[in-house]
Amino acid sequence: MNQLQLTSHLRYEVSERTSFAFSIVAARTPHQTVSHEGIEIAGDVPWTLEPYDAGSHQLLRLTAEPGELDISYTASVAVDASSAEPDELDEATFDDVPANVLPYLNPSRYCESDRLGGFAFRLFGETPAGFERVRAISDWVHANIVYEAGSTDGSSSATDVLLQRAGVCRDFAHVAITLCRAIGVPARYVSGYGVGVDPQDFHGFFEAYIGGDWYLFDPTGMTKANALARIGYGRDAADAPFATLVGHADLVDKSITVAHVDVPEAEPAAASTA
Amino acid sequence: MNQLQLTSHLRYEVSERTSFAFSIVAARTPHQTVSHEGIEIAGDVPWTLEPYDAGSHQLLRLTAEPGELDISYTASVAVDASSAEPDELDEATFDDVPANVLPYLNPSRYCESDRLGGFAFRLFGETPAGFERVRAISDWVHANIVYEAGSTDGSSSATDVLLQRAGVCRDFAHVAITLCRAIGVPARYVSGYGVGVDPQDFHGFFEAYIGGDWYLFDPTGMTKANALARIGYGRDAADAPFATLVGHADLVDKSITVAHVDVPEAEPAAASTA
Amino acid sequence: MNQLQLTSHLRYEVSERTSFAFSIVAARTPHQTVSHEGIEIAGDVPWTLEPYDAGSHQLLRLTAEPGELDISYTASVAVDASSAEPDELDEATFDDVPANVLPYLNPSRYCESDRLGGFAFRLFGETPAGFERVRAISDWVHANIVYEAGSTDGSSSATDVLLQRAGVCRDFAHVAITLCRAIGVPARYVSGYGVGVDPQDFHGFFEAYIGGDWYLFDPTGMTKANALARIGYGRDAADAPFATLVGHADLVDKSITVAHVDVPEAEPAAASTA
Amino acid sequence: MNQLQLTSHLRYEVSERTSFAFSIVAARTPHQTVSHEGIEIAGDVPWTLEPYDAGSHQLLRLTAEPGELDISYTASVAVDASSAEPDELDEATFDDVPANVLPYLNPSRYCESDRLGGFAFRLFGETPAGFERVRAISDWVHANIVYEAGSTDGSSSATDVLLQRAGVCRDFAHVAITLCRAIGVPARYVSGYGVGVDPQDFHGFFEAYIGGDWYLFDPTGMTKANALARIGYGRDAADAPFATLVGHADLVDKSITVAHVDVPEAEPAAASTA
Repeated sequence: MNQLQLTSHLRYEVSERTSFAFSIVAARTPHQTVSHEGIEIAGDVPWTLEPYDAGSHQLLRLTAEPGELDISYTASVAVDASSAEPDELDEATFDDVPANVLPYLNPSRYCESDRLGGFAFRLFGETPAGFERVRAISDWVHANIVYEAGSTDGSSSATDVLLQRAGVCRDFAHVAITLCRAIGVPARYVSGYGVGVDPQDFHGFFEAYIGGDWYLFDPTGMTKANALARIGYGRDAADAPFATLVGHADLVDKSITVAHVDVPEAEPAAASTA
Repeated sequence: MNQLQLTSHLRYEVSERTSFAFSIVAARTPHQTVSHEGIEIAGDVPWTLEPYDAGSHQLLRLTAEPGELDISYTASVAVDASSAEPDELDEATFDDVPANVLPYLNPSRYCESDRLGGFAFRLFGETPAGFERVRAISDWVHANIVYEAGSTDGSSSATDVLLQRAGVCRDFAHVAITLCRAIGVPARYVSGYGVGVDPQDFHGFFEAYIGGDWYLFDPTGMTKANALARIGYGRDAADAPFATLVGHADLVDKSITVAHVDVPEAEPAAASTA
Repeated sequence: MNQLQLTSHLRYEVSERTSFAFSIVAARTPHQTVSHEGIEIAGDVPWTLEPYDAGSHQLLRLTAEPGELDISYTASVAVDASSAEPDELDEATFDDVPANVLPYLNPSRYCESDRLGGFAFRLFGETPAGFERVRAISDWVHANIVYEAGSTDGSSSATDVLLQRAGVCRDFAHVAITLCRAIGVPARYVSGYGVGVDPQDFHGFFEAYIGGDWYLFDPTGMTKANALARIGYGRDAADAPFATLVGHADLVDKSITVAHVDVPEAEPAAASTA
Repeated sequence: MNQLQLTSHLRYEVSERTSFAFSIVAARTPHQTVSHEGIEIAGDVPWTLEPYDAGSHQLLRLTAEPGELDISYTASVAVDASSAEPDELDEATFDDVPANVLPYLNPSRYCESDRLGGFAFRLFGETPAGFERVRAISDWVHANIVYEAGSTDGSSSATDVLLQRAGVCRDFAHVAITLCRAIGVPARYVSGYGVGVDPQDFHGFFEAYIGGDWYLFDPTGMTKANALARIGYGRDAADAPFATLVGHADLVDKSITVAHVDVPEAEPAAASTA
């Protein structure tokens, strides 16, 4: 078990009445326990916490009037990943993929897996199926995409990133997810807090459905399963942005800290916190 | 209440062991009751029916060996749409959209709403919000897209269709869904059986989230809410294809019939069967 | 005949040795006579003027060392457009299009006319062929695209602009060119100096090949044929940017003036300066 | 000098009056001499041969009435490529690229070089500039794209092909051209007749501007400079299709033969026939 200490602080200048949905709250899962959690919002702004999918994704929602909006979130998160032997994690055959996992085989806005079948099979068609193949995909993304702040924007999809060979964490995840789906492995996007993310920010990584569960991978290589606290997940980054807003507000400050409380455990070979 | 009688018949030549997931079974919802249902599969092919989302989408799954696969589905479906007065169906403000509806505001593979904000606001920004605005979108799609079999394929998205101004039912739905999301109205794809679809085939239409519920629209204009039996739904057609398969099989016959059992009721002004 | 007085002034901060090709020099054509022309480049920077296509496009080329690069161009340009009666300007049949005009029927990077056949024929297929049909296309672009500085960038093509319904002068021209080519009318991009461009900048418009010659259109509606001095032309804006550079330099000042020297003549119904 | 014997035979069923422009006639260049040329068109169809760019591209043009159109072309072509030492062929610096070569640095419809800067520099940024870098690009395309008839269509561009990793000869050329332009090497598409093309058809390859001239490369690896007779060239395949037509006609037969008349010379290390 690993104990992480998180804080995030967001400050907006709100120029007209604006509704927000924040994905900044640590998820509750059988493998992730949240304690000493605090949400502080300056002024008298009412807010709600709306659990989604049994708490594995919690939305902080509020409507702010013009002026400053200042939000602080702190939590202690105990992450107790299930671990498994990579050799025992097989890819599911199509008929073994449960109905609620099937959508993660479909293409999505930022992961056009229907367009990358040839590419994916050319690169990974000969790799033995299973955990190691997904790791090969994650490693390939790490080796072939350059991390470059500002190289992409909110409209950049996996095919865009593959063509320009540069992106940020969400783009790394999108390319890996797309390649997984293209070869028939369900994959989804996860947002979270990661120790080692540089510069420290919210982080995006991915999970693949293998061995009957969702296993974590971070193709940026910046962080490890035992140093990641999950927030939410979805088909791609569109489903788990740290903030969605309708109205008009400028983000003027964002600062995140994530740290191990004690010495982290050894990294498991394959880890799941879903 | 409207009583529909459905049949679908699919025949494949399976050339290697192939896994199938069919979305051809009528959904169970508070507004749709299924009776006299029969699934017949020639030969000794084991199959399962996997309910998804509390039965509102039922997947027929099986694995077929090489040879012929012959599937017949029949059902009587009583559709008892809730109806409402269009004037009373307001668009939800962002903070009133429930967390599990929020994903239907996001762009998806075939509905790139993030790219069509300008287009949508130019066309519908001045239209008063509510049911009538969604109807205006559906009507605009009907008036501006030509129904043309074979004009699109499985990779065609709403932007492709908008540029070529031609498509089939799924494309009409995708364009309408995209425009809805672009102006802030949650929208989703629905597949089903529709009386009046010509040539008779599985049908695709859409639902918009207004007045706190999901209301039906068919931008092809071919069918009506009281003549539609729903099968499944999702973010776009990728989530509800009549068949998904992994392996190799050729569809050699597909025939669908849909009919009213008795005189249909008058079409409600706004109808929901979700 | 119309007499225009032009100036342009460009200032760069050059941070490494940089090669430039400028399209800022007024073209020499049978309909455009240049006098009192001056090119001033501060410091001891050697430059050449490379005529292209018999002077109808003149490239100012130079290589600058690190430091400031300051370029001033002035010219008096007499524009004596040929004019014609719109009714007499027929579209050429394909076999009457000369070989050197045929490339302007082909799709280009920013004018994907191969993708817009359906769109173009739906809008303009019934319009009688000839000058008036091209004018209808130019007018449609004017009415349906919003002029919005910063709404596009160097990668935006006609299809992008059609989807977002906003752009700047080059985008207006690209959409019109694309629709022309899609219905079989050769069309090309022209850059120039235009009286009335607001804010005053280099301008982009287009020419269509009708009645055996190239006729001018400005879908932004900002300027007129008798108030336009041409610089260069090509398949789309990629061929006639005011500056292309290899190296590294920042444009820190750009100012353009264009004015009639005397009272402009009445605008001809159809004008050509090619 | 290599002597090639060519024939092409095209048969159409013309269902309405149709205008054709064929690029099937061997080019006249200082390095390519055509003799014993014959054009036979069954029936009484008038045709013209329109030289373009001083004969380096000859268009065969005609208008056919409904019925059968049957065209045979034969020629003996002596190809006497200039050859050079690869080591001596430098890439031109931007200021040494002549104005009429500059357009071949621009992106075109099927060669979106503006989108592939990152990709190209990542792969070839460290390769020493010159002939060998272009050869490295051509070899990379050969190694990474699979030749697969029917994998692309007339709307497939270099980025599409890069993502699906499959295509036909025009696609191989497009990807190579795009990568060349992206790193600053002018490149253009060439169509022709090639010994060794399998299945025998018209062929597409490319030329890069190095050492002050245009040198030939065939990334499909199917043929060699001394076994290629050029027809036409352009920015991409849109400029040199074997046939363009306006009207309605179906191609019902196409057969091409290309053969060496005598033992071919040894392949030069670098060859130009422009």
